Amino acid sequence: MQFEAFSASGLAAYLSGIPAVREQLGGDTDLQVVEVGDGNLNYVYFVSSVRDPRHSVVVKQAPPFLRLVGEGWPLPRERMEREVEALRRFGALCPQHVPSVFHADSGKYLMVMQRLMSHRVLRQGLTEGIVYPRLADHISTFLARTLFHGSDLYLSAAEKKEAVRANINTELCRITEDLVFTFPFEDAASNVYSPALPAGAIDRLRTHEPLRRAAADMKWAFMNRAETLVHGDLHTGSVMANESETYVIDPEFAFYGPFGFDTGAFVANLLLAYYARDWHDRLKGRDPREYQRWLLGQVAQVWNGFAEKFAGLWRMHERKAGRAFIGGPADTRAAEAYREDFMRQLFADTLGFAGCKMIRRIVGMAKVAEITSIADPAVRALVELRCLRLAEALLVRRHELASIEAVTALAAAVLAQDIEA
Amino acid sequence: MQFEAFSASGLAAYLSGIPAVREQLGGDTDLQVVEVGDGNLNYVYFVSSVRDPRHSVVVKQAPPFLRLVGEGWPLPRERMEREVEALRRFGALCPQHVPSVFHADSGKYLMVMQRLMSHRVLRQGLTEGIVYPRLADHISTFLARTLFHGSDLYLSAAEKKEAVRANINTELCRITEDLVFTFPFEDAASNVYSPALPAGAIDRLRTHEPLRRAAADMKWAFMNRAETLVHGDLHTGSVMANESETYVIDPEFAFYGPFGFDTGAFVANLLLAYYARDWHDRLKGRDPREYQRWLLGQVAQVWNGFAEKFAGLWRMHERKAGRAFIGGPADTRAAEAYREDFMRQLFADTLGFAGCKMIRRIVGMAKVAEITSIADPAVRALVELRCLRLAEALLVRRHELASIEAVTALAAAVLAQDIEA
Repeated sequence: MQFEAFSASGLAAYLSGIPAVREQLGGDTDLQVVEVGDGNLNYVYFVSSVRDPRHSVVVKQAPPFLRLVGEGWPLPRERMEREVEALRRFGALCPQHVPSVFHADSGKYLMVMQRLMSHRVLRQGLTEGIVYPRLADHISTFLARTLFHGSDLYLSAAEKKEAVRANINTELCRITEDLVFTFPFEDAASNVYSPALPAGAIDRLRTHEPLRRAAADMKWAFMNRAETLVHGDLHTGSVMANESETYVIDPEFAFYGPFGFDTGAFVANLLLAYYARDWHDRLKGRDPREYQRWLLGQVAQVWNGFAEKFAGLWRMHERKAGRAFIGGPADTRAAEAYREDFMRQLFADTLGFAGCKMIRRIVGMAKVAEITSIADPAVRALVELRCLRLAEALLVRRHELASIEAVTALAAAVLAQDIEA
Repeated sequence: MQFEAFSASGLAAYLSGIPAVREQLGGDTDLQVVEVGDGNLNYVYFVSSVRDPRHSVVVKQAPPFLRLVGEGWPLPRERMEREVEALRRFGALCPQHVPSVFHADSGKYLMVMQRLMSHRVLRQGLTEGIVYPRLADHISTFLARTLFHGSDLYLSAAEKKEAVRANINTELCRITEDLVFTFPFEDAASNVYSPALPAGAIDRLRTHEPLRRAAADMKWAFMNRAETLVHGDLHTGSVMANESETYVIDPEFAFYGPFGFDTGAFVANLLLAYYARDWHDRLKGRDPREYQRWLLGQVAQVWNGFAEKFAGLWRMHERKAGRAFIGGPADTRAAEAYREDFMRQLFADTLGFAGCKMIRRIVGMAKVAEITSIADPAVRALVELRCLRLAEALLVRRHELASIEAVTALAAAVLAQDIEA
């Protein structure tokens, strides 16, 4: 099917014809359509009742090509379907943290979903130094509930395998395989290095053996371990939050992959914000340390909250079934010992994936605003070096680091080190 | 479609109507049909020209139920399709070790393949003490070629994911999940314990924590790591051999799973034959030690041959592509260091899966003839205890054992230990 971008009036007319959407718009047909974009990939519109703008929905249209480039860079037509399915699946498991989908039309590459009126993209909020008191609790709940219920720990083996089959997402996985796990470690054309980043730091990514081995391990895990339906792109730009609510959006990269890819992505982005903090606060004459402490606290609380909730769901499920994943009754010492091994491995995976995600945001094509907005090249390079240094330690020492508190202590130690930019 | 077993004349008439099969039968239509069975699951026939019995094919018919029980125990109708596809894929990669498929008819749950006239099932040959001078070379070639070419190390990411999707084999995987990884470690109804096996040995499988943790790890790996198209049931009963040739048959359990599942299965079955050896040789007044040495030599040669060939294929492929899996050019030190990590992990997986496979053959429903044919219950129990002891060590110490020679030394040490049956 040919892709066609909507005109404002065309979109309004189309939406008015869909009862579920019309209801969200208060039955009104006099609609305001504002294109807000979401960057490189998609068309995004806010559509609101002119009479009462509180009646509003978001329309996302994902053309089968890279919007930035046009039809010359085709993208899989399935990506909107993957996103809709993942939103529905995650929404069923965690309705309080996932926007509702009111309508999806794969022929038009389009979906209509809940407008989050009073929420902002978390990355922006973190850059401005906003404290979200419920963030760690919400995100750890989202992670535990979605990751647990997609896995063999919960689903029957047949349901799980069917879900693996249904959620193969080749093209978007390829983007991650290239941009996160391969290009940063070679002389790839799409890499972008900040002007003051020392050549030695770039060279180290290509030659330091322990780092290369660890990153390759994570690449293999990403490509081969079909553990659960992961969001696949859970950075702080995929979260919308306010003081009391947190929503996870944009799961178009969803596929059956390793648990740690989502936990690692979120932790990585908190750590990027942590190192970028100095600049943003000092620019405003503020002491960055308090917010930095809060960010590291979030890292610890997200992991600890996730681990406790995930293990709790698992224990509860085994009790209800009267049977442990490892065989035999629930609640045996062996079942608990295996659970501890499992969580330790998931922790190591989290650190390894966090390391890769941090590195790709420094040297890869897709960067993060809290770092690119640092105007002083030397300061930016210093922040980037800190990110790279911590990322390397997370990757190489992922099996040694015994707790998330050891990780946050390490992050703080890297901040305190003298580094020559 | 309803399943119908063929009459001899019905099968002869059916086969005569298929040109590719008729050609194999020398154009003859006067055919002898002999049902040879293959046990619990399938119907197997030898069909030969009466005029010249060297013109002969094998017909395998896989009804959509457990033959042993009947329609009350349904089996997936896809299993014959899985087997045909795997035979064709493996045959394309390794024609010298895989029987040709001349015809497949999924409506009749039937396939026609190459008759191996002068070959015997390897398990029988090993029980009789036959030396196969080319066995390790052939099996290691089969393993290296099939496992390498199904993986992300060789296929494009898109081809690999398509192959994962196409080879989901839910029902037969479930059999392995239950019978290999779960039931042996719990009080399952289908377990069968030999009369003299001490209760302590059975109890240990259910309570010894390090063993339970290791077995659960392997179960998780089996269910989640979609690394390559594995045979899925590569014991010595799935191999037919003579002095100069070796064929791998019966890949109906094929699916995308971990490399080590096939290497481990074969090694496990050599080790079962090793411990059963005493009885079979002493019964005939022969010294078992020479053949035992040969069997342990096969264990070492299969692994070492596999590892060398697999790493060689990988290196060659990267050179040809000018690019390493880990990114960057081929033949860097980092690429080679990762390859070593990878092979070390594959070795640990091999040992872990071998341990699980050995245990299931001792306490599970499906046993091996070289052990069940030991008439003296005490001797049989002693053999079984040795198998369990080695299996436990392979599982628990899989990351410590540094080489296959360390494994064969351990196997010999277990044979030399005094064990109270």
